[in-house]
Amino acid sequence: MNEYKAILSEKDIPREWYNVVADLPFDLPAPINPATGKPLKKEDLSAIFPASLIEQEMSRKRWIGIPDEVRDIYRQWRPTPLRRARQLEKFLKTKSRIYFKDESASPTGSHKTNTAVAQAYYNKKAGIKKLSTETGAGQWGAALSYACNAFSLACRVYMVKVSFHQKPFRKSLMHIWGSDVVASPSELTESGRMILKKEPHCQGSLGIAISEAVEEAAKNKHTNYALGSVLNHVLLHQTIIGQEARKQLKAFEEKPDYLVACVGGGSNFGGFVFPFIKDKIKNNALNIIAVEPTACPSLTRGIYDYDFGDTARLTPLLKMFTLGHNFMPAGIHAGGLRYHGCSPLVSALHDNGLIQARAFNQLEVFKAAIIFAKTEGIVPAPETSHAVKAAIDIARQDKKGKCIVVCFSGHGFLDLASYDKFLSGELKNYALPLCEIKKALKDLPKF
Amino acid sequence: MNEYKAILSEKDIPREWYNVVADLPFDLPAPINPATGKPLKKEDLSAIFPASLIEQEMSRKRWIGIPDEVRDIYRQWRPTPLRRARQLEKFLKTKSRIYFKDESASPTGSHKTNTAVAQAYYNKKAGIKKLSTETGAGQWGAALSYACNAFSLACRVYMVKVSFHQKPFRKSLMHIWGSDVVASPSELTESGRMILKKEPHCQGSLGIAISEAVEEAAKNKHTNYALGSVLNHVLLHQTIIGQEARKQLKAFEEKPDYLVACVGGGSNFGGFVFPFIKDKIKNNALNIIAVEPTACPSLTRGIYDYDFGDTARLTPLLKMFTLGHNFMPAGIHAGGLRYHGCSPLVSALHDNGLIQARAFNQLEVFKAAIIFAKTEGIVPAPETSHAVKAAIDIARQDKKGKCIVVCFSGHGFLDLASYDKFLSGELKNYALPLCEIKKALKDLPKF
Repeated sequence: MNEYKAILSEKDIPREWYNVVADLPFDLPAPINPATGKPLKKEDLSAIFPASLIEQEMSRKRWIGIPDEVRDIYRQWRPTPLRRARQLEKFLKTKSRIYFKDESASPTGSHKTNTAVAQAYYNKKAGIKKLSTETGAGQWGAALSYACNAFSLACRVYMVKVSFHQKPFRKSLMHIWGSDVVASPSELTESGRMILKKEPHCQGSLGIAISEAVEEAAKNKHTNYALGSVLNHVLLHQTIIGQEARKQLKAFEEKPDYLVACVGGGSNFGGFVFPFIKDKIKNNALNIIAVEPTACPSLTRGIYDYDFGDTARLTPLLKMFTLGHNFMPAGIHAGGLRYHGCSPLVSALHDNGLIQARAFNQLEVFKAAIIFAKTEGIVPAPETSHAVKAAIDIARQDKKGKCIVVCFSGHGFLDLASYDKFLSGELKNYALPLCEIKKALKDLPKF
Repeated sequence: MNEYKAILSEKDIPREWYNVVADLPFDLPAPINPATGKPLKKEDLSAIFPASLIEQEMSRKRWIGIPDEVRDIYRQWRPTPLRRARQLEKFLKTKSRIYFKDESASPTGSHKTNTAVAQAYYNKKAGIKKLSTETGAGQWGAALSYACNAFSLACRVYMVKVSFHQKPFRKSLMHIWGSDVVASPSELTESGRMILKKEPHCQGSLGIAISEAVEEAAKNKHTNYALGSVLNHVLLHQTIIGQEARKQLKAFEEKPDYLVACVGGGSNFGGFVFPFIKDKIKNNALNIIAVEPTACPSLTRGIYDYDFGDTARLTPLLKMFTLGHNFMPAGIHAGGLRYHGCSPLVSALHDNGLIQARAFNQLEVFKAAIIFAKTEGIVPAPETSHAVKAAIDIARQDKKGKCIVVCFSGHGFLDLASYDKFLSGELKNYALPLCEIKKALKDLPKF
C-alpha cells in the first residue's frame, strides 16, 4: 500500500478485548493477599472495584466482549491511524520501514482513554457514584476525567504534588471535564497525613498517590478506585491497540520485525504487543522491545519478586519486576514512567524471555523526540519518546530493511515546558548507583 | 451512513485548489498601490513574494494544481475527518445534525498548516532562503515553522508581545521546528523602533507585527514574507478544507443547511465555504455564517472600504470590511481573531449578501467551548469556539432537523491557561463603544 496511513473504518474497531492469559505458555503467579499470605480472592478487591472488573482481572477467557456503550464512545476517535514515518525514514537514511500506531489521536491525547472509558462504564453500571484515582504527569487523570464526565460520575484525582505544580495544563483538562484535583500527599487521607507528618514538604510519588486514592475508595461505599496501568484488566482494555495495528499492518502488507513501546506500569506496551504474542511464540524472530528510563529501570535493573503496588502498602502483593515500593525515582520529565514496579503480565513475559527491555537516559530520549517532531511533525510525549529513541537506534543499525512498529502512546502538546528546558540545556541525566537500588529492594515484603 | 466520522483515503486529498474568483457573480475590487493610487501590479509585490504566489494572488483561473511535493506533506494528516457531533446533539436535545470538519488534526493543531506548506514550497523553489512572518496567538507562527523546517528554510516569527509572554507554548513549538521567535514590537526593524520610541511598553498587535515582518522581507534579497490569512492565495490554499468536506458530506448523504466558521483574517472561513459558493448561488436556502468576536467586529460593525493591512502602512490598500488599521482590539483570548480587517474575498461575499455575520462576546463563547469539550471530548481553540457557539445557538432554535456543518479550525491544548481563567471567573466581556470604532475609522487612507 502506497498510503502514509492505514485508518480502517469504525466497523474495524474490535468487538472484543483480547486476554493474553489464555495463550501464555506458562502459569501466571497469582497476586497475594498480604494479610493472609494466600492467593487473592475476588472478595478481597470488592471494596474498591466492581464485580465485573474483578472478573476480568482474574479471567482466563481468551476474548471478552466490549459493551456497545463503550464501543460507541471509542467510535469518536477509533480506529486510531497506523502511520508510516516516511519523513523520519528519509532523515535517518535507513532501509527500515517505520510505522507508528498513533494513540495520541484520542480526545485526551494518549492511549489512557481506552481503559478509562471501560472502567467508568462498569462502575456506573454497578451503581457507583464516584471514582478516585492517582495521576503523575496527568495523562491518566485527564483520561479518567473525560470518561467520568461521559458517564456522569464524579471523579477525584490525587495528582503527584510536583506535577500538580509543574504540569498545570493537564490539571486544566481535568477541571474542564469536572473533576476535583488534589495535590498528593494531601490532608484528605490518613496515608497522606502520615507522610506529611514525617515529611511536610514531600513532593509526592505515584506510589503515595495510589495509597490515597485506594484509601478513599475503600472507606466510601459509593466510591470506587480506578487504576491507569499495571493490573490485568487495564492492560486487557488496551489490547484494542494491538488488534487494530495487526489489521492495519496487513493493509500495508507488512509483518513486523520489531514492536517497540515504552513501559511505566506497562499498559500501552501490553495493549500493543499482547495481540502479537502468539506470533512471537510461533516465530521467535519477532523482537518485542520494552523501553524504560535509566532513572526508573524496573525491567532492566529491578528484581522479579512479590511487592506492593503502592507506598502505604495498601494493595495486594503482585509478582513483578520491581525496584521496591519505597524507591523514589529522580524527577525526570517522563512522569508516566516513574513507577517502581511493572505490570505482572509484562513482567512474566520478560521473565520468560518473550520480550526484551532497554533503558535510555533523559537527554538522548529528548534528542530523539526532536528528530521525530522535525520529521513527522508530531511532538511526542516524553514517555512516548523512549519508544521513539529505541526505534531510531534500531533503524540506524538495520542493514536489511526491517519493519519496525512503534506504539505512539501520546502527544507532547502539554509537555512543551519540558522541551523548552531541553532546548535551553537545563535538563540532565540521572545516574542511579547500584547502592540506591539495593537500599530500596531491602524493603521488599516477606511472607 | 451510521459512522461517527467520514475520513476518506489519501486518494481523496484534492489535486487542485479552488479559486472562487472564477465563479463570483460580481467583480472583485482590485488592491491599490498606495504610492500611485492605481491598481496593484504584479511587480509591486515582488520584493516580498515569489512570482508563483503573486500569480495565484491575481489569478482568475478556477482550478490551480497542487504540486506533488505539497500534496506529499498533506498526506501526513489529510484528509482530515468530518465528524458527526452525536454527543453534542444528544446534550442539546436538538433535531439538528451537527458535523465538524476537524482541522485540529494537523501536526500544528490548526488549519494554518495547509497554506504554510504551500507557501514554504513555492518560496524554496524560487531560491529564497528565509521567510519572515507575524503571529498572534501562535497558530500561524507554529504552522509556518513546521513548513519551513520541512523545506529547510530559515524562519523568523514576529510574535505579538502580549502573546509572546502569555502563550509560551506555541513559541516552544516554533523553537522545536528551528524558528527564531522575536517579541513584536522589536528593535530589529524601523517600524518596531518607531513604535517603541512613541510607546516603550507597547504590547504589540497583529498590524504592527505584520509591518515588522514585511519590512524585513522587503529589505533582504533572500528573505520573503509569508502571511497566514487575508490574501487571496492564502485562502486559495485553504480550499482543500471545503472540497474534502463536500465529499464527506456526500458520504453521509447530507446537504448542508448551515456552514459556520469563525473569522479573523478569514482563512479558515474562506477555505471552508468557497467550495460551496456555487451551491449558495444556485440555492439561496444555504446559510453561510461568519462568526467574529464582539471585541473585534469588522464584519458586523466595520465599514467596507480601502484600508492598509498593517499599522505602519507598508501593505497595499485592500478593499475590505475594516475597523481601521489603527484599531486596537481588547485583549480577548481568541488572539487569532484580533485583526482590524477581513479578507477582501470574504468581505466582498458579505457586501454582496452571500454570507451573514454574527458576533459573540468572550464569556458566551467559552461557555459554548466547555459544552463542546464535555460532549465531544475535544477542547476547541478560543477562535474555533466562536463557530461552536454559533452552531449551538442554531441547533437550539432548530425545530426542523437541519444539517449544520462547522469548520473546527483548531484545538485548544495550548490555550488551557485561558480556560483556567474562564473557569475561575477571571475572564470578562469587553464593551466596544461606537465612539471608539468611529475614532479608528477616521484614519482610513484617502487617495
